[in-house]
Amino acid sequence: MCVVRPAARALASALRQRAAASVSGLAATRGGRPLPGGDGGGSPPGAAGCRSLCSRIALREGLVFRQLYESSSSTYTYLLADSNSAEAVIIDPVLETVERDLMLVSQLGLTLKIAVNTHCHADHITGSGRLKRQVSGLRSAISRLSGASADLLLDDGDSIPFGRHVLTVRETPGHTDGCVTLVLGDQSLAFTGDALLIRGCGRTDFQQGCANRLYNSVHQKIFTLPDQCLIYPAHDYKGQTVSTVGEERRFNPRLTRSREEFIDIMNNLNLEKPAKIDEAVPANLVCGLHDI
Amino acid sequence: MCVVRPAARALASALRQRAAASVSGLAATRGGRPLPGGDGGGSPPGAAGCRSLCSRIALREGLVFRQLYESSSSTYTYLLADSNSAEAVIIDPVLETVERDLMLVSQLGLTLKIAVNTHCHADHITGSGRLKRQVSGLRSAISRLSGASADLLLDDGDSIPFGRHVLTVRETPGHTDGCVTLVLGDQSLAFTGDALLIRGCGRTDFQQGCANRLYNSVHQKIFTLPDQCLIYPAHDYKGQTVSTVGEERRFNPRLTRSREEFIDIMNNLNLEKPAKIDEAVPANLVCGLHDI
Repeated sequence: MCVVRPAARALASALRQRAAASVSGLAATRGGRPLPGGDGGGSPPGAAGCRSLCSRIALREGLVFRQLYESSSSTYTYLLADSNSAEAVIIDPVLETVERDLMLVSQLGLTLKIAVNTHCHADHITGSGRLKRQVSGLRSAISRLSGASADLLLDDGDSIPFGRHVLTVRETPGHTDGCVTLVLGDQSLAFTGDALLIRGCGRTDFQQGCANRLYNSVHQKIFTLPDQCLIYPAHDYKGQTVSTVGEERRFNPRLTRSREEFIDIMNNLNLEKPAKIDEAVPANLVCGLHDI
Repeated sequence: MCVVRPAARALASALRQRAAASVSGLAATRGGRPLPGGDGGGSPPGAAGCRSLCSRIALREGLVFRQLYESSSSTYTYLLADSNSAEAVIIDPVLETVERDLMLVSQLGLTLKIAVNTHCHADHITGSGRLKRQVSGLRSAISRLSGASADLLLDDGDSIPFGRHVLTVRETPGHTDGCVTLVLGDQSLAFTGDALLIRGCGRTDFQQGCANRLYNSVHQKIFTLPDQCLIYPAHDYKGQTVSTVGEERRFNPRLTRSREEFIDIMNNLNLEKPAKIDEAVPANLVCGLHDI
């Protein structure tokens, strides 16, 4: 690897003779001199792993996609739309960031049709209700098994089309009974909610949580997706924005364990109760209908 | 837009007769009944704007790309690599998140070759130095005009190749003298540092800041990129992760103003001094060499 400057500048650059900070120092690496610790180019040892684990983020033609973040609850909201019809779906909107999201929807010229929650959240209040008050025709959606009310109650296998695109519902209970993973039609993206986080997973110690069910959900409904399928979770607490199925299959510290080990880990996390649970769950149980 | 469930479930679903929460309520929209406030499908008013403003995020074949976030300084770090050669470049690494980034580099099987800073940051200490101590052969890079030391001093027009891909350097001074924007070879991505933020821009009231120069930089070096080119800045404070050239050309509240208005806005922001400036700038001036 070297830094290449335009031909016109090459001579002047060479004349500077600042070896430590000039292109010439690096150019030698191009000629085959191995970098210390490197391999001189070609096929590094990790290349095969890289190929299998890293998606090229080549999404479908005409898909508008935005990842948005709410910092107080570390929640990701996702906006997807068809660039031709402008029909849009928002996943896991947060009450505090509704105005930001609506501004973006407006600027992008989108028509918000469905606000879907991956589950009945315990750590923040959904923005669905406020969005519905402000967007005529917007419908809220959540898993039927969540026990929450919404305009659309989703079941396993349901599809949510928006223009040329579609999200397919996979029930992935375990964090809660009503958790779903939403998978883009070509299986290039999956929105896993709290079922599968980046190198982690949602807790299973309240709200019908069950480590055994979560283990089944992830292994049967998410890890069966293609290795290069991008994983977009509902939260991240370490500044990670995306993963892939292949990465989580190999590197998730909990889900790479045996079922018994996983259950033991999950039953001994000893986490504090979420700060907003007493406020958030009742509000989210009337997801899309509450008057906030 | 409607929710479609598999054929096998349609009858059972219909029998549930839960109008408010069943597919049947939505199915009517498919038959052409306009949604309140909607347009019945087809070509919504905003669709043209959407097409021109939203990239389809179709990156080059074989590009590994990750956006990472450091919350205390709201800094984005970017990891790019070639999926075949595994050669990787990291942009704007942060001291506090070096271990996280190195873990990802390792898991993805990448070989980190260059750590480049878009400028000499005042709000956080670069991770370049710590990375260099841990990654044999890694070289640091920063603009020659930054006044900082590094293994590679970049000039306008320089290219940073990694495998099949390349980042091209565009000098975009104004926030500091040594700000650069790094543009992927096919102009599908631009890493704008603090020159252009999402619906904002870097301040110009210290470190050689100059609103007039920043205005020139953005208009001449960034807004001349294709509308669909994705903008990845060094920071965001509102949970936004990406924008496009087209969006910023239309909606950036500062850069859509005249030069005179822009200068007036920038000269009257009355911002507090960055908390870490006295610690960060001296450290970053020896970017890639300091012993932290």
